[in-house]
Amino acid sequence: MKEIQVGLIGFGTVGSGTAQVLYEQAERIKKRTGVSIVLKKVADISTAALPDYLTDTELTRDADAIINDPDIDIVIELIGGTTLAKKFILAAIAQGKHVVTANKALLSEHGMEIFKAAAEKNVEVGFEASVGGGIPLIKTLKEGLVANKILSIMGIMNGTANYILTQMTDHATPFEKVLKDAQKKGYAEADPTYDIEGIDTAHKLVILMTLAFGMDVRLSDINCEGISRIEPIDIQFAKEFGYRIKLLAISRNHGDHIEASVHPTMVPEQHMLANINGAYNGFYFTGDMVENVLLYGKGAGKMPTGSAVAADVVDISRNIVHQSINRVPSLSYLPEHIAPRPITPIEELRCPYYFRFTTLDKPGVLSKISGILGKHDISIESVIQKGRDKKSKVPIVMRTYEAQEAAVRKALNEINALDTTMAETVKIKILVDDGK
Amino acid sequence: MKEIQVGLIGFGTVGSGTAQVLYEQAERIKKRTGVSIVLKKVADISTAALPDYLTDTELTRDADAIINDPDIDIVIELIGGTTLAKKFILAAIAQGKHVVTANKALLSEHGMEIFKAAAEKNVEVGFEASVGGGIPLIKTLKEGLVANKILSIMGIMNGTANYILTQMTDHATPFEKVLKDAQKKGYAEADPTYDIEGIDTAHKLVILMTLAFGMDVRLSDINCEGISRIEPIDIQFAKEFGYRIKLLAISRNHGDHIEASVHPTMVPEQHMLANINGAYNGFYFTGDMVENVLLYGKGAGKMPTGSAVAADVVDISRNIVHQSINRVPSLSYLPEHIAPRPITPIEELRCPYYFRFTTLDKPGVLSKISGILGKHDISIESVIQKGRDKKSKVPIVMRTYEAQEAAVRKALNEINALDTTMAETVKIKILVDDGK
Repeated sequence: MKEIQVGLIGFGTVGSGTAQVLYEQAERIKKRTGVSIVLKKVADISTAALPDYLTDTELTRDADAIINDPDIDIVIELIGGTTLAKKFILAAIAQGKHVVTANKALLSEHGMEIFKAAAEKNVEVGFEASVGGGIPLIKTLKEGLVANKILSIMGIMNGTANYILTQMTDHATPFEKVLKDAQKKGYAEADPTYDIEGIDTAHKLVILMTLAFGMDVRLSDINCEGISRIEPIDIQFAKEFGYRIKLLAISRNHGDHIEASVHPTMVPEQHMLANINGAYNGFYFTGDMVENVLLYGKGAGKMPTGSAVAADVVDISRNIVHQSINRVPSLSYLPEHIAPRPITPIEELRCPYYFRFTTLDKPGVLSKISGILGKHDISIESVIQKGRDKKSKVPIVMRTYEAQEAAVRKALNEINALDTTMAETVKIKILVDDGK
Repeated sequence: MKEIQVGLIGFGTVGSGTAQVLYEQAERIKKRTGVSIVLKKVADISTAALPDYLTDTELTRDADAIINDPDIDIVIELIGGTTLAKKFILAAIAQGKHVVTANKALLSEHGMEIFKAAAEKNVEVGFEASVGGGIPLIKTLKEGLVANKILSIMGIMNGTANYILTQMTDHATPFEKVLKDAQKKGYAEADPTYDIEGIDTAHKLVILMTLAFGMDVRLSDINCEGISRIEPIDIQFAKEFGYRIKLLAISRNHGDHIEASVHPTMVPEQHMLANINGAYNGFYFTGDMVENVLLYGKGAGKMPTGSAVAADVVDISRNIVHQSINRVPSLSYLPEHIAPRPITPIEELRCPYYFRFTTLDKPGVLSKISGILGKHDISIESVIQKGRDKKSKVPIVMRTYEAQEAAVRKALNEINALDTTMAETVKIKILVDDGK
């Protein structure tokens, strides 16, 4: 039986999960491919010993012992970060090794350099595990939907943020409290910035846009807003309007420009994305031929992510055995067809909005606010005003018809400057999509 | 640029959709593969002319003109049925052609014969379009989840049945009326038997079980029950219990035997499958590593199905160009690892049940019914009895704890024979799955 030798750099959660998947599924993979995948070496600086079942795997503290091993065909990078990981991957490619990685931060920041180096050495870079954990959505974009112009990508791509929003929705608990609980339970990191501010989601969107649109795109192209300003009261009003608040990545193909942003969104409650709860992820692709496709599953975790890493290892192993390397281009389009494309300026985007004004409860306030909105061409679709109390501040909540972001910003600046406005106005975009 | 020549047999809805996808996506496919896919010939006995845009495609009434054309690499069969289609496919394989088909009936009945012939000639048979229209779920089972033992398959696999149930749910309309409307609108066929009696769903389940479990399975192995006996009152009671009624295909891997059936099911309303409405399909796979993955989209239709056919053509074209034919085995496992496996006898399956008894409203009826259930070891979880009317029949509705099908059948036979029972008892299985 043909044998493919693999080296694994980084034996943390996903690394050890990957080793376990390759071990537990070894017989199944043989029955499906006719190939035996052998984990020859694991490199990790802090692991004292490998699990007992890895009887034929050597533990080293030196990544170069893998990178320079002439018997190793595929190097799996699972240390994360963008400095050492990049160095190891480029060194492995220089040695003619194929690479599998789950490193979305690295790929979204230095992907083009890595894929260029890989193309020059005619090796493959697999990265299914970098987005959506075990959900095979990268294969879907590259192969399953190959005969489609992708019109849009929408998704819940961060399990931590979705878990926090779900808890806030189900228990009306404030953001800070849910975050602390999530940290205690290990669902959120000690420094949760990447997850809650949408940066992790933006990393993933960069990768998907490259695959979907054949586009050289960078993190700085993505307009990014997190969930830390969402309050239970907004979730409550969202429910009254028939929405759920989700942190969505959205990219739409407008032909001569591409829209790309990450922000909290009011999703109509009958939309499939509105029903994705807890730590789950959902990826909603619209193609001109296939219409809407949703892929849903665990977007992170030791074994699901290990499943995706193993699938890439198998895919590359098949290509090694069949001598069909780069049978499918790493970035779905041939390198010469990947180019930068203009990003829609965020100010030009149009959608309906949810506003929550915090005002003094005085006569004429609503009239003044709606006057300013009208002046900026923003039409009100409905208003909720509750809890009248002459002495204190009250929320006024509005849903608008479609309006332009630039106009919205100007109008809110004026409204926030009113002496009857007691706190910065909350604005949340409303998704227009039937979700079917 | 490398060129792959394709012949298409059958220019009906999916056939013309496929031609249109290949035409409209030709440039995109070139940019993704470096290959030009040329539709050389179309065979159809009733089409008078091809659309204008197919300038270089020849129309013939003779399928053999495609099968025997030495320039044609891939034959697409889209005539449906199991007689001529089988003949054409086997003839094409004998000529060394690769085949792409959407023919689930043929594959579920004669798949093993076709795949054996293909293996002998070392050609490929692509069938992504046979299940789930444009949703790339066959690629997902064969490749994306390659490093998983599949524990279960559950799915809404027939858009017509799901459309009918959704209409019945949303408008409390009886089955017969919804069916007639659906036929008028073209959502259901003149003879709807295959769709509403679950046979089409069972065809699809056979294909998925083969891929998931490496299993030689036939249509006759699947226990199959349709939706024609569902009444609006059952849908109403389902809602009160927190369920939606869906026609589900369910196959669970119990290790030494495999459960396989198609039946109307009470799905907990928070389950992802409960929220799949209208003509949409949902496929819910559980793997031992990846946990739960749902794929959702249009399970039928001209362009979505054309998208799947085109994806198969591209996949095979890549293999032709890279000389990597059968890089992935057609049935996901190597032929020598596909074997029959025991099917769980339907009588041995256990689940909670919904019963609707139609009885005379007399004292002691409920006691008699619960006595019979108790005798057969069936415990009642809750009861709803409504609309007391001394002179007429009333429904008594129950939800049971987990019970064995054999015991349920015996108990219902006894209950149906009571002189207070006025109509055959309706029984619907309840799904136990958190759906996350």
